[in-house]
Amino acid sequence: MALEDRVRELAAEVRPPDEAAANVARERHARLAKPPGSLGSLEELGARLSGMSGEVPPPLLESPAVVVCAGDHGVLERGVSSWPKEVTATMVGNFCAGGAAVNVLARTVGVRLSVLDVGVAADLERHPLLRTAKKKAGTDDISRGVAMSREEAAGAMMSGAGIAEELIESGVDLLVTGDMGIGNTTPAAALISTFTGRSPGETTGRGTGIDDETHELKIRVVGEALELHEPDLHDPLGVLAALGGLEHAAIAGLVLMGAVYGVPVVLDGVVSNSAALMAHAFAPACAGYLIAGHLSVEPGAAVALESLGLEPILDLKMRLGEGTGGLLAVPIVQVAARVLGEMATMGEAGVGCVP
Amino acid sequence: MALEDRVRELAAEVRPPDEAAANVARERHARLAKPPGSLGSLEELGARLSGMSGEVPPPLLESPAVVVCAGDHGVLERGVSSWPKEVTATMVGNFCAGGAAVNVLARTVGVRLSVLDVGVAADLERHPLLRTAKKKAGTDDISRGVAMSREEAAGAMMSGAGIAEELIESGVDLLVTGDMGIGNTTPAAALISTFTGRSPGETTGRGTGIDDETHELKIRVVGEALELHEPDLHDPLGVLAALGGLEHAAIAGLVLMGAVYGVPVVLDGVVSNSAALMAHAFAPACAGYLIAGHLSVEPGAAVALESLGLEPILDLKMRLGEGTGGLLAVPIVQVAARVLGEMATMGEAGVGCVP
Repeated sequence: MALEDRVRELAAEVRPPDEAAANVARERHARLAKPPGSLGSLEELGARLSGMSGEVPPPLLESPAVVVCAGDHGVLERGVSSWPKEVTATMVGNFCAGGAAVNVLARTVGVRLSVLDVGVAADLERHPLLRTAKKKAGTDDISRGVAMSREEAAGAMMSGAGIAEELIESGVDLLVTGDMGIGNTTPAAALISTFTGRSPGETTGRGTGIDDETHELKIRVVGEALELHEPDLHDPLGVLAALGGLEHAAIAGLVLMGAVYGVPVVLDGVVSNSAALMAHAFAPACAGYLIAGHLSVEPGAAVALESLGLEPILDLKMRLGEGTGGLLAVPIVQVAARVLGEMATMGEAGVGCVP
Repeated sequence: MALEDRVRELAAEVRPPDEAAANVARERHARLAKPPGSLGSLEELGARLSGMSGEVPPPLLESPAVVVCAGDHGVLERGVSSWPKEVTATMVGNFCAGGAAVNVLARTVGVRLSVLDVGVAADLERHPLLRTAKKKAGTDDISRGVAMSREEAAGAMMSGAGIAEELIESGVDLLVTGDMGIGNTTPAAALISTFTGRSPGETTGRGTGIDDETHELKIRVVGEALELHEPDLHDPLGVLAALGGLEHAAIAGLVLMGAVYGVPVVLDGVVSNSAALMAHAFAPACAGYLIAGHLSVEPGAAVALESLGLEPILDLKMRLGEGTGGLLAVPIVQVAARVLGEMATMGEAGVGCVP
């Protein structure tokens, strides 16, 4: 089957969460030994986890995994970042060596880490943590032509979906998205503007920390890319091929596979948010399996999450990517699942005389 | 030595954090393999942890402990809560049995739990998790007289300080505050109004979830208590004895002892926030060792944290107490400590060509 058809088939398999299970969880929350509603957002999060799995209580989420999808970006030639392309490969090396922020976070919160190379513009050394599924040595410049072919885009999606399926089949019950790719907030802004109709000025941020002048240039470049491609919302794969990044594609595929299996997917920052919008364009029901780990300071993040109807768990003014903001939310998601399974009800606790 | 003098002596031992160590940590953050500032609030939190310990990197915070301080409240007779006093003892039993929210959270995030009875109005069964240091079987009604004697207040503070010291001496490197006491948001509001000058209407919330009418009554009761006692800010122990709760006192003592040892103290919600203001009145420098785990929906929480100059880590609309909001922040505090110790610098990672 052509890759494009495989993506379409995967998307067609996504079913909405089980609203009946979510309601049973909501009723259980009202009977637990605490004032009703006093666990705030954790209660609705727990109910959503029940909806995703169809189980009350939901699974314990004891085997979380983060996948850092990596790729390079031709649009970097336009000067949209202050960091050179080579840093992508260097940072992938740093992930494998264990010294990056994502390594420290994954170790601290107990999350298994994988790195997926779908498009780094360098030959990377083999490493047990690194999965190679390179479709292209970095995208082409989205402001001058398409980023990649439809087949490359579909291939990167299926690589993300494939690693998600493997992890889930090996017991993983919670997925966290991560990204690495110097320049990748530029395609993220282009995708978010495309799917939300918001202007590049509202979706384009400072990435690694560019100055005012470079920021203005970056907004212009995103605008040029949108004008050049006139993206057609009815052809999400065409949008992705024109404006995306290979790691955005892989994350979108991972999201779809998580949704198909009923496994919650915790989103990191703006690149993951844009990929989630992408997945949503293929299968709107996938939003029911998404958890916004944090709100990135990149302006496109808030725009994308609002469009997906997701409230972020954390707001710590982070903008690093790699999966870091998603990982920080993992213990909170685990707690939301476990209170439903492990807390006594008012009756069990002997709190019988409560109004 | 009289208890009152012991409290004064403890407070006098609090020294400000080591600003030089915090600055070394800030400089180290600028050299780590990530865009400077991209870890958002985690960076300043890490620098503060270095200041508290005087070490760069700061300790790993691998041995956190939560102490749930419990007491009852005479002011409950005024009808300020919809839950009966007996629930305090029942919930302490639930903590010992392992079925409360705080148990689930402590297990999930790997935190050791202790319960300290400084004033529950019931004889509690012995249990390995329960420390008995009852000063009084619940306070008296603060709207009609003092809550407790100065000696009882000082004694409860020293009990909180004592358990903190024991935990720290046994290796605990991070403390989390927790509270249990039906009615305890009423004295919390009275303390917060006293120390911030804000009106009872601005500091009094709905606790476990009272209706409009009860909320208005509760605001009136807090106002009556403030009028009756005309608290003298130069006599913090007098304020505590007049308006406090025994668990508020114990938490204040725990905060002071944490500060004396340079051990960070993560605050839970409004009761802990009011106790921190209390501790701050004894030793302003103790604020340097405090971390606001979350922002409770109780309005007094934001007022108290602003007055202490603390930004909450989480805002999940929680209002349960027990230490739950503080516990949720523990993995984030641990991450803030560990990135300083475990992340590679740009040089080590080979990211040499960065601006």
